[in-house]
Amino acid sequence: MSNPLVNARIRAIPPTVPFVGPEALTRKTGHQFKARIGANESVFGPSPAAIAVMQNAAAQNWMYADPESFELRTAIARHLGFGADNVVIGEGIDGLLGLTLHIVLSPGETVVTSDGAYPTFNFHVAMHSGRLVKVPYRNDKEDLAALLDTAKREKARVLYVSNPDNPMGSWWPASEIERLMEGVPEDMLLILDEAYGDTAPEGTLPAVDVTRANVLRYRTFSKAYGLAGARVGYCFGPAQLIAEFEKVRNHYGINRVGQLGALAALQDQAYLKKAVADIARARGRIADIARANGLEPLASATNFVAIDCGRDSVYAKRILDGVLARDVFIRMPGVAPLSRCIRVSCGTDADLDRFAQALAASLANPSGA
Amino acid sequence: MSNPLVNARIRAIPPTVPFVGPEALTRKTGHQFKARIGANESVFGPSPAAIAVMQNAAAQNWMYADPESFELRTAIARHLGFGADNVVIGEGIDGLLGLTLHIVLSPGETVVTSDGAYPTFNFHVAMHSGRLVKVPYRNDKEDLAALLDTAKREKARVLYVSNPDNPMGSWWPASEIERLMEGVPEDMLLILDEAYGDTAPEGTLPAVDVTRANVLRYRTFSKAYGLAGARVGYCFGPAQLIAEFEKVRNHYGINRVGQLGALAALQDQAYLKKAVADIARARGRIADIARANGLEPLASATNFVAIDCGRDSVYAKRILDGVLARDVFIRMPGVAPLSRCIRVSCGTDADLDRFAQALAASLANPSGA
Repeated sequence: MSNPLVNARIRAIPPTVPFVGPEALTRKTGHQFKARIGANESVFGPSPAAIAVMQNAAAQNWMYADPESFELRTAIARHLGFGADNVVIGEGIDGLLGLTLHIVLSPGETVVTSDGAYPTFNFHVAMHSGRLVKVPYRNDKEDLAALLDTAKREKARVLYVSNPDNPMGSWWPASEIERLMEGVPEDMLLILDEAYGDTAPEGTLPAVDVTRANVLRYRTFSKAYGLAGARVGYCFGPAQLIAEFEKVRNHYGINRVGQLGALAALQDQAYLKKAVADIARARGRIADIARANGLEPLASATNFVAIDCGRDSVYAKRILDGVLARDVFIRMPGVAPLSRCIRVSCGTDADLDRFAQALAASLANPSGA
Repeated sequence: MSNPLVNARIRAIPPTVPFVGPEALTRKTGHQFKARIGANESVFGPSPAAIAVMQNAAAQNWMYADPESFELRTAIARHLGFGADNVVIGEGIDGLLGLTLHIVLSPGETVVTSDGAYPTFNFHVAMHSGRLVKVPYRNDKEDLAALLDTAKREKARVLYVSNPDNPMGSWWPASEIERLMEGVPEDMLLILDEAYGDTAPEGTLPAVDVTRANVLRYRTFSKAYGLAGARVGYCFGPAQLIAEFEKVRNHYGINRVGQLGALAALQDQAYLKKAVADIARARGRIADIARANGLEPLASATNFVAIDCGRDSVYAKRILDGVLARDVFIRMPGVAPLSRCIRVSCGTDADLDRFAQALAASLANPSGA
């Protein structure tokens, strides 16, 4: 039944199946997860300095955060070597992707992305009535050449690329991304999602260059910085385009505790380095667990590992369900052929011990207890 | 210079002057405010139980919050006597107002509001390319009859009313709001902003009735609950319309610490009662201070008091600037004739002592030291 109060664009969007959280799975199934390694959060947590700042900020949470996020923007700008007017803070990269499309896209215009890449980006395209064109992954990587060719041919307004990518964890060297940047026409925006940039090998992230008029890059405190709950991401690029966010963002949308925590986390680069090392070690363990069970781990530059289960998505889903039934929260890619994999976020040793047991048991008897 | 990447709708929006925060004023003027009573925050803070919950949540901030906000929605639903599917959580009422317009408004459609009412609502209308029609206040209150007449005549898609209102602090009894609800045509949405409902006299808020298909009501933890920094507001109404938010909201947009803090605050109604009493007492003191200085305080149902300075906006602005120059952060309405007033949020006794001194000094010598 259509509601006369809902406009035609929104009526045309089918009821949404959101990214189901572990809490909803628990409510649905009754399973209390004993390992939470499905949402690419960082179990290693944020810097102790950030925790202390957030604890101290709790009693001050009667105050709005600075709506200009001045200190955080200034610190990011200094960290990356540009001006504070080259960066905007948002409620995670998700929030910023939505704002970007609001600014750039007109209804019906084309957006190109990889088939099976970040579903929340596609959700935002739908919300802004874009036409989504998807390019298959190639060898489990986003296919940069085909993405650019398709975007040009389809006269796309926006091209979305993530590097490293989610859900496969693959990555391109900076030189390939720079070549892509060079090729994007000036009336097309390249959205470069670098949510997982902090965990990537050196040489993955292109040098920061905010003079490119049609490139916006997105980073977050949700992954390696261990602050997914804080909802603080940022977007940087040319000041002229960044200024447009002022017209559409929720100026008072950033929470005070998260904003202060993110600043403290940024200022503790030593902790970040340690967290990245912990993440790398956990990636290695996940890979070992996969191999020990006869499965193939994919190389990863992120805080998760995609494990090729060797058959189709039906089979992978059975393994996934078996792992979930054993109280270990993991996820899997949604689109074939990526969906032959399960996706396991880095965990503590205890988390990965549980995962190892659950995976072996699931392979032996997927249906659970 | 127009950017070819920015769509025509956003290009048409003039560069925005956001609601300037006290931090920005401090950066601009060098004044360190000694009383922060300008943003209608609650200096009385949140419940100690909520503070404890938020402190404990800091170390867990590596986890996303439940994107369905299930526990908070369930608690609100129980508190107000409807179902969890009648309520959606957002990044403050601001965030929810934007989403509402995204769902309901088509570009060029008309929105009616009061001239001088909440500027951020108007900002959202601009962002969604609405046509804004403003109705003057009448006797310092939103003019319900004129608002409805205008909305009907202009075939508005949306009518915005706040009760109690900001920036004047005035209010209508529930019976008048109910009469308004009855009169709104079925293809027009009534947005009823009740941000200040918790501090209003009994009989101000209409009974909760989620069967009205074209009424959405908005409340927040930012005001009486003392959690402005948490960015948690909610919107309730008919389930069919509430469900549309799932298509457009940032599902992972709510921060974990704030979401847990809001739940704890809701569960401490005894503290809320105490905070509301503290707010009422502070309102009385602000009124006394105004009168002692020969100015007229307006009756208020909110956590602030508008003080009529007795002349025009130029005069009120001089008094405002004099108070700011004496390190007391307050604000003033932006539109005549409301802008003959200054607006003072409830403060602690120490805050109001400072305000009393600053006001007297400003009246004697507005230009400052």
